[in-house]
Amino acid sequence: MESVNLARGTRDFLSAQADARRAVMDKLRQVFERHGFEALETPAIERIETLTGKYGEEGQKLIFRILKRGEGAERGEVDMALRYDLTVPLARVVAMNPSLPKPYKRWQMAPVWRADRPAKGRFREFWQCDCDVVGSQDPIADAECLAVAGDAFRELGFQRYTVRINHRRLLRAMAQRAGIGEDREASLLVTIDKLDKIGQDGVKAELAERGFSQEEIASVWAVLDLSGTPPEVAQGLRQILAGQPGAEAALAELEQIMGLARALGVPDEVIRLDPTLARGLDYYTGGVWEIEVDEPKIGTLAAGGRYDGLIGMFAKAPIPAVGISFGLERLITVMEELGMLPGRDRAPTVLVVVFDDKSREVSAKTTAALRAAGIRADLYAGAPKLKHQFKYADEHGIPWVAIVGPDEVKNETIALKNLRTKEQATFSFDEAVSRLRGPLAPVEPPS
Amino acid sequence: MESVNLARGTRDFLSAQADARRAVMDKLRQVFERHGFEALETPAIERIETLTGKYGEEGQKLIFRILKRGEGAERGEVDMALRYDLTVPLARVVAMNPSLPKPYKRWQMAPVWRADRPAKGRFREFWQCDCDVVGSQDPIADAECLAVAGDAFRELGFQRYTVRINHRRLLRAMAQRAGIGEDREASLLVTIDKLDKIGQDGVKAELAERGFSQEEIASVWAVLDLSGTPPEVAQGLRQILAGQPGAEAALAELEQIMGLARALGVPDEVIRLDPTLARGLDYYTGGVWEIEVDEPKIGTLAAGGRYDGLIGMFAKAPIPAVGISFGLERLITVMEELGMLPGRDRAPTVLVVVFDDKSREVSAKTTAALRAAGIRADLYAGAPKLKHQFKYADEHGIPWVAIVGPDEVKNETIALKNLRTKEQATFSFDEAVSRLRGPLAPVEPPS
Repeated sequence: MESVNLARGTRDFLSAQADARRAVMDKLRQVFERHGFEALETPAIERIETLTGKYGEEGQKLIFRILKRGEGAERGEVDMALRYDLTVPLARVVAMNPSLPKPYKRWQMAPVWRADRPAKGRFREFWQCDCDVVGSQDPIADAECLAVAGDAFRELGFQRYTVRINHRRLLRAMAQRAGIGEDREASLLVTIDKLDKIGQDGVKAELAERGFSQEEIASVWAVLDLSGTPPEVAQGLRQILAGQPGAEAALAELEQIMGLARALGVPDEVIRLDPTLARGLDYYTGGVWEIEVDEPKIGTLAAGGRYDGLIGMFAKAPIPAVGISFGLERLITVMEELGMLPGRDRAPTVLVVVFDDKSREVSAKTTAALRAAGIRADLYAGAPKLKHQFKYADEHGIPWVAIVGPDEVKNETIALKNLRTKEQATFSFDEAVSRLRGPLAPVEPPS
Repeated sequence: MESVNLARGTRDFLSAQADARRAVMDKLRQVFERHGFEALETPAIERIETLTGKYGEEGQKLIFRILKRGEGAERGEVDMALRYDLTVPLARVVAMNPSLPKPYKRWQMAPVWRADRPAKGRFREFWQCDCDVVGSQDPIADAECLAVAGDAFRELGFQRYTVRINHRRLLRAMAQRAGIGEDREASLLVTIDKLDKIGQDGVKAELAERGFSQEEIASVWAVLDLSGTPPEVAQGLRQILAGQPGAEAALAELEQIMGLARALGVPDEVIRLDPTLARGLDYYTGGVWEIEVDEPKIGTLAAGGRYDGLIGMFAKAPIPAVGISFGLERLITVMEELGMLPGRDRAPTVLVVVFDDKSREVSAKTTAALRAAGIRADLYAGAPKLKHQFKYADEHGIPWVAIVGPDEVKNETIALKNLRTKEQATFSFDEAVSRLRGPLAPVEPPS
């Protein structure tokens, strides 16, 4: 027998996990819809040309490529690939549908694939849940992304979370002030991005190693050191970056975004203006944000920003865009750790057992009647000993068992047993239905 | 600029289509759950060994194979592939989880990929919606598959559909009676399977071409010609196949399945015992079924049968299994043609427009309050002329527009306009909410 296994970095989800994942996605979808985002589905496979050259050198290596069928296969030719994210497909859709009314607010929840080395919490097939606003430069669009996140985290049941925000052009102003030209900016920001992992001393050491002078590092640190409430940090930035081109406009834009996010219901206390937030330089052009929960410390659960250069890449003109992306697997991991997941919530309410070999049809009729009354009713597929059938109900988390034996057939009744309370009683069909519709209270004979 | 396109045989679904697809899948899911099936998710990519040799020579060519990363890529080496169906992954899951309580009734709805030549209604990425019962040989399991189908078709709104059923061992008995050995059975059944496409004369001609004698063809035709109600066809089969090994047991099993399906609520008149139904010989071992709607004639919408040999292929022992699979794209096509699709049903209820450049925050606050009241409320991302914003609402199918201009701010009111009836009036917030919660009735000033 051949060995049987999953492909590396992929997983199966049995019912409890599958139900929990769907419950989380259903909640996200409701929030997305309530915020006026509309659904989009794109295929898992894209033409190789669509994805090539879009994710930098490192990203390029992580794309799963699909071999050509027929002749090309022998030469290792590739014509398609698995999508790497949902943003490049969005850009393709926008280019192919120029008449799509703008702003185009779309959500998409779908798996993406990356040939990363699998590790704890890192998979090769994982789900992204994205909201983007395409075709608006207005800060309302940015604030809407933060508002979606705020609503989503509240709906999912998170008590405490933090939205860190910064602005791409503030980072540039910080570099300019230190005399660091655009050619060295990427190197600077990639290093700053490691603050969470290697700390201040680590970042300073690495910057020195990368050839930044002590004066440059000190100048940058004056900005990175700013802390306090958003107005306090904004005041500090205003002083330090005074006169740097673009800084004041960026700050004003951030303040507008924060104000509108508050107006849209994001609690004041969760927003942190954070000059150290430096994510995705080559991609973002304006505001950037990362959201994490305070406990457990697992890192970013949602992130995004404004990227006015990307969506237009397939079209004839640049198209402004801004978005936020939720990582489903991290959300699930955190919610599991905090005991926030519902577990299997779609189990049948009742198992109709098959009393004996002659009871198949009567049990089937009872099952059909219960289902017609809207009850999730399983029918045991066979007629082994009742003990065996009761065990099946137990193993499947089915709280009630219904028995239609010879006595019940004669009296036109149903015996119901509650497996949690162990109580059992006999009911008319209508009484049984109202029992099964109610909470899982102990069964008492009807008065 | 490079040309932009989808990969061949794949599609995007914009909001109206995406909503319709989700509505259909939500209904199917509810039916599956009501019948006691539990959810399973498996990855889109499987190890190449898992899929190789499972789909016959023709199927094998249609598997999308994924190139190895790193060194192997240059040699065209392949280690993974996109799943081709949901049944082989189910077999893998059952083998990898031997403690899964049986019978294991699982549903899965997910895309599969086949490198078929794309054609009208045939795609390279398409969705299967499967229910299977693993680990039971009882006819209840077979009947449950038909009952799921009956319920699903009724819930989706189909008035008339037909369930054709037959039995693998009846087909064998028919061949045996004609003196056709097992070595020629596949050739016989592949040809009979074309009755729908090439008609009786076509099938007879092809059988002759394939070397079947006129006597053999006449003998087979005596069985294929049987028609009438299920009891009439059963009687005919009983007479003709009397004495053929396995025939009586197969007939008795089919009768049990039909009786239990009726007990489970499948209407008597939709079931047709059809001796010509010959699908998937090398796969099925017992009952087989196909379901189609009477109009439009588009072919099979759901199909399945008993396959006791397949699920055990990765395990140490054979495991009986039976299932039914719904083809989402055909269902959608038929429902579209019959005007049964809801269209975009998740559009926002109201667009809050931004009156002027100073109104962003007040509009944002109004939007947040409407959302907190559970209303799907979009906020226009910008402040262009109101005419432009109204057009946006219209283009997005948003029935209501809310305006909070200077007068409304002063009076703490909201102006609501219904874009369908063109009526407009001013309300307190609470009144506005109850308007937006109600049906899309004309707006009248509150009395």
